[in-house]
Amino acid sequence: MPAGSVLVAGGTGYIGSFTTLALLEAGYKVVVADNLYNSSPEALKRVELICGKKAEFVQLDVTEENGFDKVFEAHPDIDSVIHFAALKAVGESGEKPLDYYLVNVYGTINLLRSMVKHNVTNIVFSSSATVYGDATRFPNMIPIPEDCPLGPTNPYGNTKFAVETAITDVINAQRNNATKAGNEAEAKKWNGALLRYFNPAGAHPSGIMGEDPQGVPYNLLPLLAQVATGKREKLMVFGDDYASHDGTAIRDYIHILDLADGHLKALNYLRANNPGVRAWNLGTGKGSTVYEMIRAFSAAVGKDQPYEVAPRRAGDVLNLTANPTRANTELGWKAERTLEQACEDLWLWTKNNPQGYRQQPPAELLAALKK
Amino acid sequence: MPAGSVLVAGGTGYIGSFTTLALLEAGYKVVVADNLYNSSPEALKRVELICGKKAEFVQLDVTEENGFDKVFEAHPDIDSVIHFAALKAVGESGEKPLDYYLVNVYGTINLLRSMVKHNVTNIVFSSSATVYGDATRFPNMIPIPEDCPLGPTNPYGNTKFAVETAITDVINAQRNNATKAGNEAEAKKWNGALLRYFNPAGAHPSGIMGEDPQGVPYNLLPLLAQVATGKREKLMVFGDDYASHDGTAIRDYIHILDLADGHLKALNYLRANNPGVRAWNLGTGKGSTVYEMIRAFSAAVGKDQPYEVAPRRAGDVLNLTANPTRANTELGWKAERTLEQACEDLWLWTKNNPQGYRQQPPAELLAALKK
Repeated sequence: MPAGSVLVAGGTGYIGSFTTLALLEAGYKVVVADNLYNSSPEALKRVELICGKKAEFVQLDVTEENGFDKVFEAHPDIDSVIHFAALKAVGESGEKPLDYYLVNVYGTINLLRSMVKHNVTNIVFSSSATVYGDATRFPNMIPIPEDCPLGPTNPYGNTKFAVETAITDVINAQRNNATKAGNEAEAKKWNGALLRYFNPAGAHPSGIMGEDPQGVPYNLLPLLAQVATGKREKLMVFGDDYASHDGTAIRDYIHILDLADGHLKALNYLRANNPGVRAWNLGTGKGSTVYEMIRAFSAAVGKDQPYEVAPRRAGDVLNLTANPTRANTELGWKAERTLEQACEDLWLWTKNNPQGYRQQPPAELLAALKK
Repeated sequence: MPAGSVLVAGGTGYIGSFTTLALLEAGYKVVVADNLYNSSPEALKRVELICGKKAEFVQLDVTEENGFDKVFEAHPDIDSVIHFAALKAVGESGEKPLDYYLVNVYGTINLLRSMVKHNVTNIVFSSSATVYGDATRFPNMIPIPEDCPLGPTNPYGNTKFAVETAITDVINAQRNNATKAGNEAEAKKWNGALLRYFNPAGAHPSGIMGEDPQGVPYNLLPLLAQVATGKREKLMVFGDDYASHDGTAIRDYIHILDLADGHLKALNYLRANNPGVRAWNLGTGKGSTVYEMIRAFSAAVGKDQPYEVAPRRAGDVLNLTANPTRANTELGWKAERTLEQACEDLWLWTKNNPQGYRQQPPAELLAALKK
């Protein structure tokens, strides 16, 4: 078993729960903290069904003063945090930016304060490709490398950017202060991974674990899934006048299992190599248009999914496709799964769990799991 | 008297107290909130001695939850905030970045939350030229215009940048939400000024009001003042190998009375023109090197001030000189006072108040004031 336990903040959410699964499968001891605002503790039961191991759960809001102190006091073996706890809807961030600054930015300041106080020295942060903004404003920056100048175009992206600088400044200060005090061993312990990911997609191939957004989903594939099950009449395509081959916006869709594996590899890299703060793109390197995604998901379902074109949304950009070379070479990580597999896994999850985590999965899927 | 009272957060500090004076002189009713961390309530007594009007004082920390709510409840006539409450030492921000994120960023989130709750709709924010970072990386960007790409180079600057985006996002959301609800009158009420200022300098020409930093001062002129009074053996010049004509770094020093007047003009502009969020540089447009400043201050004192060259400081840049054209034309504001006057006023204040606000000013200065 790896030394040191891991706190997964926001660990019952979509990416958080799959990362918890990856950590447990790799032998880590995991404590999950989540306020359950947009997620269900049932996700952790599915994790346990799949891997036979259990994460401890603490209900906690990131903005609760001293909340993380209590967790670190109760679990002195935690030396690393993977931090997903945030609001994540670009559109909503334009209407309620204060909530985003409070939860995403202050929440992280609050977490960092507790980490420094309790000597929890590694953080893997759930950043976003949104920090790049419209990379098409630079020549040769598509697919986007990590050294592309940052320039978010919406409040959600602004909060992710602010958190990146906060983590960078705090980790650098911890290292510099320790170095000045002549303690190089202490300096090396402080590390941060800024994982800028592109569009997470898909579900667990068992069909018992997937994305379960409360209320209206924010992203293309969950919306398409609702169309396929009849919950939603049609998909709204925001903009068909972008400068892509079919006019719709280009994104880099990455299978959730690959994304979770990227978090595990980043954490292992921090522990093994002590790089300080470093950003890595987690993407496939291959962009797909909205129309291509509709076709791919329709193929998985076996039925064409209806859509309607609407105007572009404020803050959306033409193309967010990763150059994942740095993660490929440094982390030894690569997106292995195809878009088709993501669509198939999503459809298996969706058709078998129309109420998401609010109902038990079909007995035949559970039986198949035990084999 | 102008309609609406003004809350000056951080109003006992250097720029805050001079802005309070300018507001009172212009007929505004002013409430000052300050935690007195690096300032003295005596500053407000000097304001009263100078202008014969009094600001109300509330001791309050920006990070206190619901603290601003209480102020706005007690003063329902407040419709505008001028926000200075922040930590401001670049060097310290590299060692204690968490304090800077907490006070500067979270403090402002906390303030904005109360403003939205209590319908306080105008904010003038004490930003900094530091948000530009090293503008010499762009051609034709010295002197720096407001549309120069931002890129702070130290944690202090990162917090100012994050606050600029928070204010922009919140004001824009208030306007957009009101517009969507069909309430254009409400939308127009929400306005923000991002005042990026360069290097404040000088004191009140009466000699009874000036900068009174607790502990070690951060900036060139207060340090020079300590050398002149013998509190400090010599000035440390950080870097003489910059690409300037004498090798020392170039800054744009602006007289504190001009700077305070800029805040007043920005507030009036927000109220009269409802521009939404807008950034203005407050500077003279003329850069001076460290060596030029030492000569100017030595001339005011009538004695050469000793100095020693030390290595550059991390995060410092070659040249921060404002292009103040936008403020000149839009706000009808211009820096009127000379560098020589700033040095003379600073020396008058320094030699007459060796203990700053911890002692009463000489009787002859008070007598001169009454004439």
